[in-house]
Amino acid sequence: MALQGIYAGSFDPFTNGHLDIVTRSLNMFDTVTVGVIQNIEKQSLFSLQERIDMVRQSITSDKVEVEGFQGLLVDYARQKNVFNIIRGLRAVSDFDYEFQMSLTNRAQEPKVDTIFLMTDQKYSYLSSSIVRQLAKLNGNIEGMVSPYVAQKLKETFHG
Amino acid sequence: MALQGIYAGSFDPFTNGHLDIVTRSLNMFDTVTVGVIQNIEKQSLFSLQERIDMVRQSITSDKVEVEGFQGLLVDYARQKNVFNIIRGLRAVSDFDYEFQMSLTNRAQEPKVDTIFLMTDQKYSYLSSSIVRQLAKLNGNIEGMVSPYVAQKLKETFHG
Amino acid sequence: MALQGIYAGSFDPFTNGHLDIVTRSLNMFDTVTVGVIQNIEKQSLFSLQERIDMVRQSITSDKVEVEGFQGLLVDYARQKNVFNIIRGLRAVSDFDYEFQMSLTNRAQEPKVDTIFLMTDQKYSYLSSSIVRQLAKLNGNIEGMVSPYVAQKLKETFHG
Amino acid sequence: MALQGIYAGSFDPFTNGHLDIVTRSLNMFDTVTVGVIQNIEKQSLFSLQERIDMVRQSITSDKVEVEGFQGLLVDYARQKNVFNIIRGLRAVSDFDYEFQMSLTNRAQEPKVDTIFLMTDQKYSYLSSSIVRQLAKLNGNIEGMVSPYVAQKLKETFHG
Amino acid sequence: MALQGIYAGSFDPFTNGHLDIVTRSLNMFDTVTVGVIQNIEKQSLFSLQERIDMVRQSITSDKVEVEGFQGLLVDYARQKNVFNIIRGLRAVSDFDYEFQMSLTNRAQEPKVDTIFLMTDQKYSYLSSSIVRQLAKLNGNIEGMVSPYVAQKLKETFHG
Amino acid sequence: MALQGIYAGSFDPFTNGHLDIVTRSLNMFDTVTVGVIQNIEKQSLFSLQERIDMVRQSITSDKVEVEGFQGLLVDYARQKNVFNIIRGLRAVSDFDYEFQMSLTNRAQEPKVDTIFLMTDQKYSYLSSSIVRQLAKLNGNIEGMVSPYVAQKLKETFHG
Repeated sequence: MALQGIYAGSFDPFTNGHLDIVTRSLNMFDTVTVGVIQNIEKQSLFSLQERIDMVRQSITSDKVEVEGFQGLLVDYARQKNVFNIIRGLRAVSDFDYEFQMSLTNRAQEPKVDTIFLMTDQKYSYLSSSIVRQLAKLNGNIEGMVSPYVAQKLKETFHG
Repeated sequence: MALQGIYAGSFDPFTNGHLDIVTRSLNMFDTVTVGVIQNIEKQSLFSLQERIDMVRQSITSDKVEVEGFQGLLVDYARQKNVFNIIRGLRAVSDFDYEFQMSLTNRAQEPKVDTIFLMTDQKYSYLSSSIVRQLAKLNGNIEGMVSPYVAQKLKETFHG
Repeated sequence: MALQGIYAGSFDPFTNGHLDIVTRSLNMFDTVTVGVIQNIEKQSLFSLQERIDMVRQSITSDKVEVEGFQGLLVDYARQKNVFNIIRGLRAVSDFDYEFQMSLTNRAQEPKVDTIFLMTDQKYSYLSSSIVRQLAKLNGNIEGMVSPYVAQKLKETFHG
Repeated sequence: MALQGIYAGSFDPFTNGHLDIVTRSLNMFDTVTVGVIQNIEKQSLFSLQERIDMVRQSITSDKVEVEGFQGLLVDYARQKNVFNIIRGLRAVSDFDYEFQMSLTNRAQEPKVDTIFLMTDQKYSYLSSSIVRQLAKLNGNIEGMVSPYVAQKLKETFHG
Repeated sequence: MALQGIYAGSFDPFTNGHLDIVTRSLNMFDTVTVGVIQNIEKQSLFSLQERIDMVRQSITSDKVEVEGFQGLLVDYARQKNVFNIIRGLRAVSDFDYEFQMSLTNRAQEPKVDTIFLMTDQKYSYLSSSIVRQLAKLNGNIEGMVSPYVAQKLKETFHG
Repeated sequence: MALQGIYAGSFDPFTNGHLDIVTRSLNMFDTVTVGVIQNIEKQSLFSLQERIDMVRQSITSDKVEVEGFQGLLVDYARQKNVFNIIRGLRAVSDFDYEFQMSLTNRAQEPKVDTIFLMTDQKYSYLSSSIVRQLAKLNGNIEGMVSPYVAQKLKETFHG
């Protein structure tokens, strides 16, 4: 049976740090679903469709499926019948939140397990919010996101 | 002289983790006042009266008094002449904030001391915001809050 | 050649903890520029000019220059041709964010280096947001800010 | 191709927390090698053979192989041609060390990746050294280790 | 019924930070037992009797009892029928260890509860090992320990 | 007046992470003294003279002075009349210890100030103990230490 994993996030925008986690998770999983969260409350810079497109433009592997989802991650996992949640860890500040979410998810659905991968050292400071802030203030985001994402950010802020 | 303590918070909503701290603080204090903060700026899901009712519905002990208050916790402590502040600690991420508040309070009023109790392990991931989020997205909140609070959440989000 | 440093922040308001960092940085640097950030998005309590005035009122040394700036800190550093960024560290919770910003800045401009000074122990719990909160709720802020800043806070909240 | 993982440690002794990680890693890996470290410098309570026996007595799955190894973990991984290292995370204090080791291993052997699983909440406080200390001082270690390990500890300390 | 607490430690030597915790715990407890741990394995600088004497010389309150004990803290608590364990917290690095010990103790004896007090800010960097190191290298330990303890350290290292 | 700094440590051995801190501190200080600690109690792998030689072989700048010292760092600082202590920070786990030492040193000698520099990201996992361990077990230490230090390690462990 093929081993499947889910990598979920807002990806607003998708960064090279996210890409690094997807790429490395493919060494472990036969297929990985990148689930782009449609968060109704939290305002995102890019629309759900734009964020899905960004992930698709960055990943060429046919072992990766990209789609949007709404609601609880555990419900999405149940619906897909895939119970391995992949998460990237960058720094100690991620840890407590991730621990809390991991326990919450397991309390909701005992079948769910969370697999943590350390983000590559060169992306350890990288986050979507840093990228948004740099892009807005004309900072240099080369090497942080794909050229496609860089272009979208440029259009959004300085278009 | 009876030993008295104050346990203050937003309790938006009151969880079983909060209840655990109150229950255990009764092993140390003769009476405990649960002070529900009326925060004018921060928008709460439930009204002050609803939050007070939630605490009252969860606690039956006549050693516990529940009331709302406004303004600084140290002023409330002075007004009640009760200087033992009870706080629950769940995780390392709570620590820095609690340390800062404890020092701030002591700087305001040297008589104030903060007593920290570790939340029971099974509630270590629990917070009011996790509960709100789960309730909103139809997650399972059984065992996280009392049936009364669960009902109120249901009415609020899916009523 | 004179050794120069930049100490940047919102200073909304400037506290005695900030002053402590500036004072001590003068043991190391010949001149220090205090750069007050004009953040267009984040609403500040005091205007840029008010915040600049607060810093000027607190510091009498002619080795300190106070001015406002917009945009990325690294661009401001380039424009001034000063690459030593001074930061205060108070607690472990500051650390991850500071580490992230330090790495981001170095990625933008390799010449930039960040120098961290530990805030004096007696200011370890102090932050602009604590001061704003205390001032608003009639708490005691003596010793936390200069009399000038205290007066401005009083006028703003209870004027 | 079968997906393989290595779970290495001193296991002095093997606890139910370790067992929990092995059991859950079997949801992801086709086979897991438990590598018991023969550390020449650090004195262990139990011999290498005793520690191997403890693991074997605790695990019945034929998808798990138990063996001792010497030297660097990355060399052991190369020799077995298995590059997925499994680690359990319990608390924030584990994090920095694990991060350091993960980066060190990747620097030694780029093929190596580390997969972190959160230890079940009920084992979050459990460590081999806690167990040794409790066993020595006649504490209750029921539920922390298997009956076989409990018996071995009893013989060692109170035999 | 009188409320009783236990404050246990090696106290090698007893510092003003320890004294601060005892003094403040007397605001909450009717009597406090200071339990000096006789740790057979870990070599201490001062003998059990010397460490007991140091505590007694520092504390004059007749609400405090000082005695040595061996074995597990929970067994000592059971023997005295006192289940409130008092601990001082200084910094985030204390937290994980204290959390682990608190959970271990509760697993051993559900009646046991741990009450944490924040050490006064001016003692936040103080530890017995810092004091030993300073005393050995002729550092200034005034204000860190009582004159009696300072004299004992002087005799031990430079006598 | 020339600005002087002290960078003290065991340097057992001196790594490229240490070298990075020295190099970057020269952007701020006119001269830097590297003080190699002669710790009588803690057994070092290399002798004081060997460790001094390692630093000297790694640094060619005539703005750097290398020497051994005994006793408290603050006494050494007083003796040299240099009160800027330079420290490298790598990770959150360094923080608490460094904070404690910084406060202890300031309590001993108010003139002393500690300046923290972030170690370059690519050395964030590097420590002398990791290097010793890798060298001993035939790991690859290229890029972690200078060729001179690598040779000394080889002679020591496999000579």
